[in-house]
Amino acid sequence: MRRIMLIVAYDGTKYCGWQIQPNAVTVEEVLNRELSRLLKEEITVIGASRTDSGVHAMGNVAVFDTSTRIPAEKLCYALNHSLPEDIVIQKSFEVAPDFHPRKWDSKKTYEYNIWNADFVQPFNRGYTHFVYHTLDVEAMQKAARYFLGEHDFTSFCSTKAQVPDHVRTIYSLEIEKKGNLITLRVTGNGFLYNMVRIIAGTLLLVGEHQRKPEEIAEMIAAKNREAAGPTAPAKGLMLVKIDYFPAPERVEREFINECINEKQEEIRG
Amino acid sequence: MRRIMLIVAYDGTKYCGWQIQPNAVTVEEVLNRELSRLLKEEITVIGASRTDSGVHAMGNVAVFDTSTRIPAEKLCYALNHSLPEDIVIQKSFEVAPDFHPRKWDSKKTYEYNIWNADFVQPFNRGYTHFVYHTLDVEAMQKAARYFLGEHDFTSFCSTKAQVPDHVRTIYSLEIEKKGNLITLRVTGNGFLYNMVRIIAGTLLLVGEHQRKPEEIAEMIAAKNREAAGPTAPAKGLMLVKIDYFPAPERVEREFINECINEKQEEIRG
Repeated sequence: MRRIMLIVAYDGTKYCGWQIQPNAVTVEEVLNRELSRLLKEEITVIGASRTDSGVHAMGNVAVFDTSTRIPAEKLCYALNHSLPEDIVIQKSFEVAPDFHPRKWDSKKTYEYNIWNADFVQPFNRGYTHFVYHTLDVEAMQKAARYFLGEHDFTSFCSTKAQVPDHVRTIYSLEIEKKGNLITLRVTGNGFLYNMVRIIAGTLLLVGEHQRKPEEIAEMIAAKNREAAGPTAPAKGLMLVKIDYFPAPERVEREFINECINEKQEEIRG
Repeated sequence: MRRIMLIVAYDGTKYCGWQIQPNAVTVEEVLNRELSRLLKEEITVIGASRTDSGVHAMGNVAVFDTSTRIPAEKLCYALNHSLPEDIVIQKSFEVAPDFHPRKWDSKKTYEYNIWNADFVQPFNRGYTHFVYHTLDVEAMQKAARYFLGEHDFTSFCSTKAQVPDHVRTIYSLEIEKKGNLITLRVTGNGFLYNMVRIIAGTLLLVGEHQRKPEEIAEMIAAKNREAAGPTAPAKGLMLVKIDYFPAPERVEREFINECINEKQEEIRG
């Protein structure tokens, strides 16, 4: 058995998120079905980020175990042929058999995209949240700084979340305006349920002058979901990438080298 | 009666082009229907560019005559409420009653977008033509120069075209690569049927080293559709904007000032 890692991009518009659910089509379910069909064995992927209904991904990560002889790097080509056009594997490669996409240390980067104009743009309408009122980007940038570092993010976590520990670290949170497009780009060691969307919804209040940048500190300190702003719509959110430490590609190479060394020692006796 | 100009953006994916056709949904038909419903009078728009099935527009132009008292600048807000989400009016304003979007001198700008990567990108899959082979952008840029200026573009015109005069002027044709996205941006005084898509299809052959940049001169000289490359797919094409000379906004203001002057003279007796 080998463990294969997939870098998965998807347009989340038509999916009820990543995780398998009864009576709803999810990305995980489609991957399991198409991988099982392609490899003629029962495949169950393990996903890194269980994105919500309607959320997009450029680089979500999944792994699975297989006994196939198809070279790992070629698997994505075969798989993309049978996948629907809104799910595209960007890369596939072998990793160490103990690599787990949720348990290994990682840095996740999300983007939240806002179209701030008089009218919707028909071409990015599925990937941006449309806001009519002109947003004060400078105020939003000022507010963003309060999120940096290690905090208890209870105020920025859905009350439906079940994890007990709400302490997370945000390494960077940048807000950039290019024409009518405002992009929030956030990197952290992990995010709670709805956390990025609540941060985006809160920064939108600041951009509309309904809240002051300084109030973010109080909101975090409150450790109460009601202190923060609303959850911004799913379609503006995109999981950009997940960086692992150490990188599983490197681990894979080291692991394979180790195996080769072992094999060679066996041969030498 | 006043003549109103609309700047129309649309995602052409689901439409059989601009122009009304039996048994097919077109942008023109949707505009006529929704304008007539909104203004409670029979409205017939005149479009500037009759884009093909599947082609997109950021700034196509349409005009229509109406006796409504709704201020011209407010019309787009009312209209966008009832239009489907893939057609969005970006602006509406009054123009001189003799302004005609196809007969006035204009400069049109189109973009042809190519996604040049190992795999499709799920987010722009509807607005780019996917090309797997790495394209030689420098060769394409070299080839692009041969299109500049006034030429008989018979070789770059669909044989189905019915206009007798095939002479057009291309003012600029730039090719830019940003990451995996290659954009051809072309401005001219007018384009023949399928002309931008045939130019794109021919430049793709150059980018794949199937034709040399210098051969473009011979292709143009041949005045024969078979001399040029294939017609690139519709979904990569976008009508970006149409610039009129003089600008109808300016004409409108001058015209209205004239009317006001006349009125004032009448009042003065």
